[in-house]
Amino acid sequence: MNLSIGLLGCGTVGQGVVQLTDLRAHLIQELTGLRPVIRKVLVRDIDKPRAVSASTFSYTTNAQDIIGDNEIQIVIEVIGGVETARELIIQSLQSGKHVVTANKDLMALHGPEILEIAQENNVEILYEASVGGAIPLIKPLKDSLSANEITELKGIINGTTNYILTQMTATGADFAAALREAQDLGYAEANPTSDVAGLDAARKLTILASLAFYTKVRLDEVAVQGIESITAADVKFAAELGTVIKLLAVGTDKDGALSLAVRPTLIPRQHPLAQVSNSFNALYVKGDAAGELMFYGRGAGSLPTASAVMGDVIALMRDIRMGVSGRTAQMYMPHKRVDASTATPLRHYIRLTVTDQPGVFAEIAAGFAAANISMETVVQRQQKDVADIVIVTHPVSPAQLQGALSQLQQLPSVKQIHNVLPVEPDAG
Amino acid sequence: MNLSIGLLGCGTVGQGVVQLTDLRAHLIQELTGLRPVIRKVLVRDIDKPRAVSASTFSYTTNAQDIIGDNEIQIVIEVIGGVETARELIIQSLQSGKHVVTANKDLMALHGPEILEIAQENNVEILYEASVGGAIPLIKPLKDSLSANEITELKGIINGTTNYILTQMTATGADFAAALREAQDLGYAEANPTSDVAGLDAARKLTILASLAFYTKVRLDEVAVQGIESITAADVKFAAELGTVIKLLAVGTDKDGALSLAVRPTLIPRQHPLAQVSNSFNALYVKGDAAGELMFYGRGAGSLPTASAVMGDVIALMRDIRMGVSGRTAQMYMPHKRVDASTATPLRHYIRLTVTDQPGVFAEIAAGFAAANISMETVVQRQQKDVADIVIVTHPVSPAQLQGALSQLQQLPSVKQIHNVLPVEPDAG
Repeated sequence: MNLSIGLLGCGTVGQGVVQLTDLRAHLIQELTGLRPVIRKVLVRDIDKPRAVSASTFSYTTNAQDIIGDNEIQIVIEVIGGVETARELIIQSLQSGKHVVTANKDLMALHGPEILEIAQENNVEILYEASVGGAIPLIKPLKDSLSANEITELKGIINGTTNYILTQMTATGADFAAALREAQDLGYAEANPTSDVAGLDAARKLTILASLAFYTKVRLDEVAVQGIESITAADVKFAAELGTVIKLLAVGTDKDGALSLAVRPTLIPRQHPLAQVSNSFNALYVKGDAAGELMFYGRGAGSLPTASAVMGDVIALMRDIRMGVSGRTAQMYMPHKRVDASTATPLRHYIRLTVTDQPGVFAEIAAGFAAANISMETVVQRQQKDVADIVIVTHPVSPAQLQGALSQLQQLPSVKQIHNVLPVEPDAG
Repeated sequence: MNLSIGLLGCGTVGQGVVQLTDLRAHLIQELTGLRPVIRKVLVRDIDKPRAVSASTFSYTTNAQDIIGDNEIQIVIEVIGGVETARELIIQSLQSGKHVVTANKDLMALHGPEILEIAQENNVEILYEASVGGAIPLIKPLKDSLSANEITELKGIINGTTNYILTQMTATGADFAAALREAQDLGYAEANPTSDVAGLDAARKLTILASLAFYTKVRLDEVAVQGIESITAADVKFAAELGTVIKLLAVGTDKDGALSLAVRPTLIPRQHPLAQVSNSFNALYVKGDAAGELMFYGRGAGSLPTASAVMGDVIALMRDIRMGVSGRTAQMYMPHKRVDASTATPLRHYIRLTVTDQPGVFAEIAAGFAAANISMETVVQRQQKDVADIVIVTHPVSPAQLQGALSQLQQLPSVKQIHNVLPVEPDAG
């Protein structure tokens, strides 16, 4: 028996879905008792050349050809963007179709609304591919780890920034050069803002935190800092401190008070996340029963993303075959709230340029003492008549850190505070 | 509405299950619509003191009290061992009960039989906890990655040997001392054979490979080499070569020809698996669509294992609530066969002691040339009138390697061949 699928979009991921469906139709039939057949594919331009052949399907430029087709039971959305995708997904759900989406922007902004509409219509929306590409993250959080209270998520969940930072670490290149190289290789887009400013990672953290902490996190509740200000000097100092700089998305849940941030972070070289290089992604999860876990793999790409999409499709096909649906409604615990002051106190890396005069260091030390912060490490490097100083503090609360920074800003010898970055504790 | 559970065994894992069920009963009810209640617990000695209180259940020494109880819908088996567990699980399945087990020995030896009995009786047997403790492995392989052909599994799946090798690497201790320390800390059993000889890892590889490659792997088809012969000298030479020694379980599938082995292996320090330390476990998976993935976490312990057990219980409860069961029968592709000669050619580390005379090295080099193997690295270390030589070959097939070793054995100057270990390629 065939199971008819409609595909919205036929770009990189869409073509991967077509390819993988063709390649695995027989296997999927063995696994589920149903043969997946893509019937119709929504595109903007039918005549555009594509790497896949339309053997089982016809192209259409009219979404209603798919949404209005009663034979189609599963709609796969890979057009990206927010507004059109939202409308088409809602219409599909309301037409009684299950939906699989790879759309992180949509799920970050409208996840709760869409999940609710799915539930009202007794159909499912699955979105494994929206975070971490091929890596199973959503499903393990929803299923295998569901007896846990998840207390911590830490992820390298943006491949572009991880590629850039890996290159800066490997070659000593500065940010602009590493970004250009990433663009040349197709790892960064022509307009890289969403990636390098940390917005893409913030969207994914919104999705993961909502699921793991049973709450409705709003995108604007995530504190975001991008990697644009990271220089070759920071990367080099970080290496001297036995660490690497990564763009880390962190969510913690302390008895219902959540802290959510995306920030460049110094990670000790022995930490499992420090080894996540180039465009790889990883998510570190801490559960109260399971302890520490890490999931690692390719966070993007045509076939890796299609692998996650088809994993969801197969799960739906098994449910359809058994005649069940709407089985995994998302749960929310209404008492949870976002409160940045509950963030775990971390050591911080502070890089400043000071005038190179006697007594400067004593002034800085006095400033830290006044803010009641002790220093763990100080590294100084001479440059003509100024000096670059890197200070690593002992663990500090956000308020303490602010206090120390205002003290520093008042010192006439402090020419510039370049970067203030958290330092992850050692693992284990 | 309550869902009645029977628990077979109340040791370390069993007590974790009781604890976690108590702690999460409310959450699980929110997630599944059913409240999990452990009704009866099978023990050998009712009066033995235990860390958990029998608030919802009564102890029994008679398994039939559980198997014959029609209210009990899920049986959790955590007694371990093979024969009794097998009988009780089969009886439970035949009584129409779903079963969750943490029993790797049983699943490695009788997995196909038990899965078949479950299917015949239209009930499920889930066994996430049998491999990798808290780490979701079975479910991602069965679900999220099911659109892939898995071509490679590589795992550090025995915590005891990983703890011992980590300590040997960190402190330079020899095997015997590291084993004693692991025993003192409870990471190794009084009789450590099953762990250090690689048998435990082989059982887990049997389970993972059967699932990932859709076949019925027999335990005796896994080539096994333990870590007893690894010395402080090997650990030190490995470090000089930029690697660490880990007990690696490897399964590959080349167009239906499987190679399965558990062996101490040199892993380049940059490889994600090299960072898996102490009693942590990790599984590296390669899928043709997903690419490379790694799953990392605690491979043992009361609550981590209970986390996996309860993840399975929650999955079953969702199915029971929806009125479905027997939905994920395991699939087998009959054409697959185990053929060790299909193993990927790997570099090999060979450590020998030779008499320290002029011309010895030329003899060895000639032996390798005769076996048509080229050498990548040679390290020599003087010791009185003998020398320790470590050779790293270029990638060789098993047959080529055997050829070179027979050449070496014939040389009078070769006093002893200590260890022959594969070297993993660099990642990525």
